[in-house]
Amino acid sequence: MYRKEIKVVDCTIRDGGLINKWQFSHEMVRKVFLALNAAGVDYMELGYRASKKMFPPGEFGAWRFSMDEDVREVVQDTQTNMKLGVMVDIGRVEEDDIKPCEESPLDFIRVATYVKDIDKAIDLANHCNKKGYETFINIMAISTATNFELEAGLKQIEAEAPVTAVNIVDSFGSLYSEEVHHLVKIFSDNLPSKQVGMHAHNNQQLAFANTIEAIRKGANYLDATVFGIGRGAGNCPMELLLSFLKNPKFSLEPALQVIEDVFLPLREEIEWGYLIPYMITGILNEHPRTAIALRQDPVNRDKYAEFFRQMTSPECYDAKK
Amino acid sequence: MYRKEIKVVDCTIRDGGLINKWQFSHEMVRKVFLALNAAGVDYMELGYRASKKMFPPGEFGAWRFSMDEDVREVVQDTQTNMKLGVMVDIGRVEEDDIKPCEESPLDFIRVATYVKDIDKAIDLANHCNKKGYETFINIMAISTATNFELEAGLKQIEAEAPVTAVNIVDSFGSLYSEEVHHLVKIFSDNLPSKQVGMHAHNNQQLAFANTIEAIRKGANYLDATVFGIGRGAGNCPMELLLSFLKNPKFSLEPALQVIEDVFLPLREEIEWGYLIPYMITGILNEHPRTAIALRQDPVNRDKYAEFFRQMTSPECYDAKK
Repeated sequence: MYRKEIKVVDCTIRDGGLINKWQFSHEMVRKVFLALNAAGVDYMELGYRASKKMFPPGEFGAWRFSMDEDVREVVQDTQTNMKLGVMVDIGRVEEDDIKPCEESPLDFIRVATYVKDIDKAIDLANHCNKKGYETFINIMAISTATNFELEAGLKQIEAEAPVTAVNIVDSFGSLYSEEVHHLVKIFSDNLPSKQVGMHAHNNQQLAFANTIEAIRKGANYLDATVFGIGRGAGNCPMELLLSFLKNPKFSLEPALQVIEDVFLPLREEIEWGYLIPYMITGILNEHPRTAIALRQDPVNRDKYAEFFRQMTSPECYDAKK
Repeated sequence: MYRKEIKVVDCTIRDGGLINKWQFSHEMVRKVFLALNAAGVDYMELGYRASKKMFPPGEFGAWRFSMDEDVREVVQDTQTNMKLGVMVDIGRVEEDDIKPCEESPLDFIRVATYVKDIDKAIDLANHCNKKGYETFINIMAISTATNFELEAGLKQIEAEAPVTAVNIVDSFGSLYSEEVHHLVKIFSDNLPSKQVGMHAHNNQQLAFANTIEAIRKGANYLDATVFGIGRGAGNCPMELLLSFLKNPKFSLEPALQVIEDVFLPLREEIEWGYLIPYMITGILNEHPRTAIALRQDPVNRDKYAEFFRQMTSPECYDAKK
């Protein structure tokens, strides 16, 4: 698939940091940055930007905040065409945390939101935009949004926010291909002046497949992470996506090298990928938090059948009514 | 997806046995049989049937041969609606190895073939059919077949072999969704009196996704294995497929239980699943044999970038001319 409008957006450090509270060394992040740069990736999301008043820096690593000085330490004097950015959550960042773009090594800011908070997301995106950043909005937990509220929210973004792209975020990894097709159509129809993006999770081994399906239907902004790292089951693997995209600007070998050098040892320390508890939350269209908790319980972490019974028990269903 | 014509064909032991020369105990195979039976799976392929003159039984486990007496030991007096069968390779089985169906606990035989050997496959399938078995033909390495030879072969099967279904076998795990759509159409168009089946490999994390795409385009016979076990990157995971198929006759819990009890410990002993060397042979549309050899080399098994350079070197390409 070679379509010149396609952009690959790496979120290795940002989504991977959800596993270990962003405790990645600057040296490790620099290795990833150099590999992505050599691979021809278009955008690199280095972490979250968040207020240090709300998150104690002792508990969280540097990429929970992704301060401009940390980004500079990673980039050093390396020349790059890759755009660098961060993600912000509504209510977890203050206006002062974001310097004017011309004073920052960052190029873009992505605002993460649920469909119900789109007003706030537009406000925050516009604030970043006025400071000179390219902006994006990621709509999380898309598999729980109704068509009605989603279309209203997208129309509002179209009218009010000068973002480059709006992303479909399958936070629970529950979507099948026909649902992806349906969502890309809703996004495209309601965002005629914006691009559509896709951020998939791998609970059902469909993150790469759903990204392909989004591409087929016109999505051009594609999230991926090296070796699929990310919370729970992880994300669309960068190595698979780069291989699928036939654009000669991409190079697979640097991605394979950094998997070998950095991510294979890392996978021995922290866990992500297709595991049955994440598959179970995925098929039930649930947040992975129960599965993450199960994996941290040394006694029950592999009691799959019992976990499935609990998650589908009448009590569990009743509790959601 | 609920379509009453859909049949799930388990090949856990047969394809999984390619990893360890079918060295599975009767007790283990019985546990899998009971789980699949409880899960409502339609067909179980227990192994290969092969001539003991050609394969030394000392080197290979029981399921390289899947003798009728071994199958009886697994089934015991369990009542089942699940059809039981074996796979045969052209030239690796003799006529005498196959008893009349009425004397055997087996219900079906699948003939594995390359497109160039379809004449021989039809001959062998018809031999099995005359002995009373339901028959299938699996066309391996489908990603290397030209449309011309494939259409000719399918027309011949349509005219000459009373098989239930003909299977698309993506041996190298190289197909993308649009290629699956294209192949299902070629199969359907040329086999109006037969069903189309899908057997996917997971080199690009697309085995489940490609099985879904085959279903969407009309394939009704779906191969899967418990926990995705199978040579190299493995197959479409049974647990994902059963969850996707909404037919109430299927039950997921027995599949989860047997993963926990049998396949999680087994995965500590033998290796399968998404690993970068298998991804590399997949994207290059190559047989996984070079990747399997690499994984058996304790020094180089994780030298991904070097393996990729070798596989894409001018020398390697020249050698194929």
